[in-house]
Amino acid sequence: VIVSNLSDDETELEGYAHYMKKEIHEQTRAITETLEGRLGADSVLELPFGEQARDIFDRTREIKIIACGTSYYAASVARYWFEEFGIKCDVEIASEYRYRKHVVNDGTLFVTISQSGETLDTMAALEMAKGMNYINTLCICNVPESSLVRASDLTIFTHAGREIGVASTKAFTTQLVTLLLVAICLRRRQVGDGRSIDAVETEIVNELRTLPQQIENVLDLEDQIIAMSKYFSNKEHALFLGRGAHFPIAMEGALKLKEISYIHAEAYAAGELKHGPLALIDEDMPVVAVAPNDELLEKLKSNLEEVRARGGKLFVFADAESGLQSDQQGMVLNVAPVNNYIAPILYVVPLQLLAYHVALLKGTDIDKPRNLAKSVTVE
Amino acid sequence: VIVSNLSDDETELEGYAHYMKKEIHEQTRAITETLEGRLGADSVLELPFGEQARDIFDRTREIKIIACGTSYYAASVARYWFEEFGIKCDVEIASEYRYRKHVVNDGTLFVTISQSGETLDTMAALEMAKGMNYINTLCICNVPESSLVRASDLTIFTHAGREIGVASTKAFTTQLVTLLLVAICLRRRQVGDGRSIDAVETEIVNELRTLPQQIENVLDLEDQIIAMSKYFSNKEHALFLGRGAHFPIAMEGALKLKEISYIHAEAYAAGELKHGPLALIDEDMPVVAVAPNDELLEKLKSNLEEVRARGGKLFVFADAESGLQSDQQGMVLNVAPVNNYIAPILYVVPLQLLAYHVALLKGTDIDKPRNLAKSVTVE
Repeated sequence: VIVSNLSDDETELEGYAHYMKKEIHEQTRAITETLEGRLGADSVLELPFGEQARDIFDRTREIKIIACGTSYYAASVARYWFEEFGIKCDVEIASEYRYRKHVVNDGTLFVTISQSGETLDTMAALEMAKGMNYINTLCICNVPESSLVRASDLTIFTHAGREIGVASTKAFTTQLVTLLLVAICLRRRQVGDGRSIDAVETEIVNELRTLPQQIENVLDLEDQIIAMSKYFSNKEHALFLGRGAHFPIAMEGALKLKEISYIHAEAYAAGELKHGPLALIDEDMPVVAVAPNDELLEKLKSNLEEVRARGGKLFVFADAESGLQSDQQGMVLNVAPVNNYIAPILYVVPLQLLAYHVALLKGTDIDKPRNLAKSVTVE
Repeated sequence: VIVSNLSDDETELEGYAHYMKKEIHEQTRAITETLEGRLGADSVLELPFGEQARDIFDRTREIKIIACGTSYYAASVARYWFEEFGIKCDVEIASEYRYRKHVVNDGTLFVTISQSGETLDTMAALEMAKGMNYINTLCICNVPESSLVRASDLTIFTHAGREIGVASTKAFTTQLVTLLLVAICLRRRQVGDGRSIDAVETEIVNELRTLPQQIENVLDLEDQIIAMSKYFSNKEHALFLGRGAHFPIAMEGALKLKEISYIHAEAYAAGELKHGPLALIDEDMPVVAVAPNDELLEKLKSNLEEVRARGGKLFVFADAESGLQSDQQGMVLNVAPVNNYIAPILYVVPLQLLAYHVALLKGTDIDKPRNLAKSVTVE
């Protein structure tokens, strides 16, 4: 018998300094496992979601998603997908949802999202929803046998594996992947004869298959992100900007930085800049932006020019073909061109790495940031 | 002929140091004018809204409100009223709305809110909406003959009078009053025989009639708010908390402070505190909260205890019967008990005064804060 000198923790860390870093890097594998068995040659398979799934999807006309924290931002990204695909979608914070009255249209599916499946406010919202006009309850969750799973009609698991860092990373990206699979299933019922696979679905499926490799490529930016993080180590503020589905990605990026580096990071829809936050811009307020090459790129670039004109320092994760370049007032890191639907899942990864490396420089307790717990099981 | 030494500006300022201060104090009169001719003995009158209003209200099953900045927060408060009254309501930032696809249910009324009626993104959203499935377009606006007014089927004016300070105050509270009137008209169609006035309506109408006096009473807190403002003059951060309809009031309070004092103020739904922002709490992050005496008070108090337990300094505007009291770790200013529906309109006023007095201490250009314009007529 050989007795190991490593503690359980060290073994589990597999050489990484923190669980958060390990979990950021595990996203390639976690997404592969989330997709495992759920993709056909050119389409999303519904059968693996369980017997009930087809029936529930057939009856779904609208979606109401309830979540907290990072899961709420995953829901907010998914809202853009659902509505783009013709399914009305509304998203609400659980602690707000449960304390007000609601109007529920016929054909509305109630969806909860929670890594742990034990988030108290989300669980209370689900119990409340059961007495209402929803057709069914669907849970997107990472932990089998959790309270939310047991209380829901149907659960689709994220298969991220155990997440230990308080700041959620792989749970978030696998939630996004799972939500996109659900959105595609519902989309199929909105186009053509309501059952057939079309070219758009096939394209998204092919892109999803390459997503782990695309994330691997983004993880290769880590050295450049380390260089970028040095600028933030003596800062107290940051503003995160995005548009469309990347607005909630900016919110998630700001939350990560806030949670583990204690920098006061706030996100705005870039178009709202002129309605207030522009007053905050000076050299002490670095501005982080995600700029994929979509139809909003030119609008975002003009928002970034406003920041630049007011002396703000820019840190942009931009499509390699965006035309944005590093200069004295800003640093641009290039992300390889990516399909528009997949882009939010990819663009959050550099923001996770940025938060991690800033926190590392600040010397905070990254895996257990002050005042926060992994699962919020109290009100 | 006696020639005045006063410039036009000084005359208009009527002895106030800034337009913003004048406009905060004008809210009693502005609200009186907004209500003028629109209230019967025990009900809201529909006729003054124009011939078309009754027909539009009859056909409205759902509401979609589009706005920017402060007007977006007015919309977000109104959402709680509409849904409480049984009318489904969704609210979206104009710059986000106009760049994505939408699903519009039958019977949905499209509503825009803008002080100036010239907000470019809101105008573009309205033009886009015209090609969609909305039954009609309603505009809540302060400026006759403005672009939004001309382009809308129906306008309900806020009658705030000219607003000059860039940070909106009386435009916001009169928007809220106007939205509550609309919500009551729609509510009437949801209860009883669909035409009758009930006790709830009469109660709200009576409360609205006393609102100017209630605001006058809150303005009397100014000396205490000046004392409170001294604590913020050397701060760089603030967190604003609220629950329910007071969550958007917290957002508006944070926006005011941000706009004119350049303090990085951010608002959160109090229930989200544990999902991230609690990590930011220390003595340098003052926490402002609005605590009316509603069914959420006990929940909010427990959120405030979390802040206190982590060394955060509290500044609370609380119902006189809330049981909250000033102590070494916090300052509580009492607001007289107020009807739950009216409360958000009242509770924003002390937040406006707080922002004003902090900015005064900081010596900023209050009426024309850096980087901001009164109407955002560009993208």
